[in-house]
Amino acid sequence: MFRKAVVRGCSLIVYQRQRALSKISKNGSKLFLASFALFGTAQKQEIDTSKFMAEPVTSVDVLLKNKEDMKSKMELMILQVQKEFCRALEEEETGSQRFVVDKWYRKEGGGGITCVLQDGEVFEKAGVNISVITGLLPSNMAAQMRSRGKNIPSDAKLSFFAAGISSVIHPTNPMVPTVHFNYRYFEVQDSEGVQFWFGGGTDLTPYYLDEDDVKHFHKTLKNACDSHDNTYYGKFKKWCDDYFHVTHRGERRGVGGLFFDDLDGPTKEQAFNFVKDCANSVIPSYVPLVKKHKNDKFTEEEKTWQQLRRGRYVEFNLIYDRGTKFGLYTPGARYESILMSLPLTARWEYMHKPARDSREEKLVEVLKNPRDWL
Amino acid sequence: MFRKAVVRGCSLIVYQRQRALSKISKNGSKLFLASFALFGTAQKQEIDTSKFMAEPVTSVDVLLKNKEDMKSKMELMILQVQKEFCRALEEEETGSQRFVVDKWYRKEGGGGITCVLQDGEVFEKAGVNISVITGLLPSNMAAQMRSRGKNIPSDAKLSFFAAGISSVIHPTNPMVPTVHFNYRYFEVQDSEGVQFWFGGGTDLTPYYLDEDDVKHFHKTLKNACDSHDNTYYGKFKKWCDDYFHVTHRGERRGVGGLFFDDLDGPTKEQAFNFVKDCANSVIPSYVPLVKKHKNDKFTEEEKTWQQLRRGRYVEFNLIYDRGTKFGLYTPGARYESILMSLPLTARWEYMHKPARDSREEKLVEVLKNPRDWL
Repeated sequence: MFRKAVVRGCSLIVYQRQRALSKISKNGSKLFLASFALFGTAQKQEIDTSKFMAEPVTSVDVLLKNKEDMKSKMELMILQVQKEFCRALEEEETGSQRFVVDKWYRKEGGGGITCVLQDGEVFEKAGVNISVITGLLPSNMAAQMRSRGKNIPSDAKLSFFAAGISSVIHPTNPMVPTVHFNYRYFEVQDSEGVQFWFGGGTDLTPYYLDEDDVKHFHKTLKNACDSHDNTYYGKFKKWCDDYFHVTHRGERRGVGGLFFDDLDGPTKEQAFNFVKDCANSVIPSYVPLVKKHKNDKFTEEEKTWQQLRRGRYVEFNLIYDRGTKFGLYTPGARYESILMSLPLTARWEYMHKPARDSREEKLVEVLKNPRDWL
Repeated sequence: MFRKAVVRGCSLIVYQRQRALSKISKNGSKLFLASFALFGTAQKQEIDTSKFMAEPVTSVDVLLKNKEDMKSKMELMILQVQKEFCRALEEEETGSQRFVVDKWYRKEGGGGITCVLQDGEVFEKAGVNISVITGLLPSNMAAQMRSRGKNIPSDAKLSFFAAGISSVIHPTNPMVPTVHFNYRYFEVQDSEGVQFWFGGGTDLTPYYLDEDDVKHFHKTLKNACDSHDNTYYGKFKKWCDDYFHVTHRGERRGVGGLFFDDLDGPTKEQAFNFVKDCANSVIPSYVPLVKKHKNDKFTEEEKTWQQLRRGRYVEFNLIYDRGTKFGLYTPGARYESILMSLPLTARWEYMHKPARDSREEKLVEVLKNPRDWL
């Protein structure tokens, strides 16, 4: 059942339970299958995989060997954020549901870890996915990059690397907002070298507007931005409002947050630190709102309104979202992980209009006219 | 309240109640606002608007003046099919819900009549929409036509005309399949003249497979085809299987039916007669299935399966359907009429798999491997 490898000097101790990792386990913790420790010659270094929902996608010895490489740093960072966020949500879940951990591989290179908690008392559907993908850059992805102004040759086969964390949390109680975040790192290799960039964002989708919630959320994100560059929050807040636009309805998906792409400076390290701080601000920006509202009373009508808004969420994700569109059009895409972002249930009524001066109308007003919250 | 116009010879009698037509009425019949009769010199001709859900989009005098024009013929045909189909469905509805009739205009030219019955006992959501649109061809529409091989100049402003009927019926009982149909006529005018074509189709999406139902459905469509061209059914059945493909899941949306586009022969008149026969075959192909199954018993699990399949329906419509995509990307599109096709409620579960040898698995098997039904 166990394999033990001892390599000292450049030494690695591996306890690895020999078991298929790609199966869904009803109990995520069963998949913390490995613990590793490296005792390097210069200093003690460790990768403690009990801090992750599952073993890394890249083998631990490769991660250790390339520990200064941004690819490794990004993978380890998203693994840790995934675990911390899942555990923080499980602490709020009052039912017995826990995250189910699903580790998967992609035959063209790389894989991911999808964690889903479904049909909980507090969370109707919560998904936290990481993926670490390598391979040849698909032509639609290259075209999308070029359309954003990147200098990506169109006639060459380019290898790429992408590591990211992506999450959508759909709570049961309509007084608790939905949150989405995604942080990612890209490398594309062409004959002239490696291009790299980071992208990501966090955004909030309430069903009922609680201005204090929105301010707390934006303030937390702004703090993460300000310690790096005091122009970031303003720029990325606007980018978020522009991106999450359900164009045909003239509404934003929610009350925004941050969104950015193609970030490659001031240095690679500084960009990474910024992204890490953003990812680490998800819990303090969102979990307090869950705690505050998860026991709020609500009516059947309020639940129906949540379902209608979830329909709009589906519209944005399936019609406009770049990641979803790109993902689903990529041959061999793991569509279940991509569509994990969809709510458990949604509703569409023809010509639904909130009553005048209702709380529902107040929300729509803000979605049609994004505000500055701070 | 009434306006009466009498024009004899080239004569027109118009009784028109002066009332806003663009409002939703709880009772569609209130909108049968006009009855018209033309007594031409050569023969008696009539446009009896009580046969429609609302007054035509094009004014009746224009329709009469151009009665031999295909634009008029198509508009009158779809108006009649809309009414007959709505009435046939209302006869099956055991609750008190009736179609709500919503007439709308498009500022760039034309308009439509959207009829929706929602939250019925038999029909969870039933939409039957006609539109008659004129204006300058939007560039995305022109590009789509060129991509299908049409000779549409790219540098000119072209006027176009489009008239069509489109309908999706989502029943409450999971033993009753969903049906969709759409029949349309296009004209595009360029410096060299007018290009025209017809397109359309009818397709069935069951939640549980009843082979007799599927055979009846396909047989009815085949009969409509065979009286025009005995190669049509085979070609258009395959086209339907190919079109309604939820590519990322490797599943067809349903058990198919007919789908065709760019039909412009053998003559314009013959193509129209074929399309008319297809449109008129919707009731005999589908309504018997509603009658047969609307009182079937079903379990909560079977209802959940229907909701999951409806999630797939939403995926197809928002990600792949050409009409929806084209529609929503057109500035000023009437998105409520386009999205009328979405179910009232839908569901997404992560990694849902039907149990082995279950009726649900049997359906998926057919969706993955389309069959010949006749």
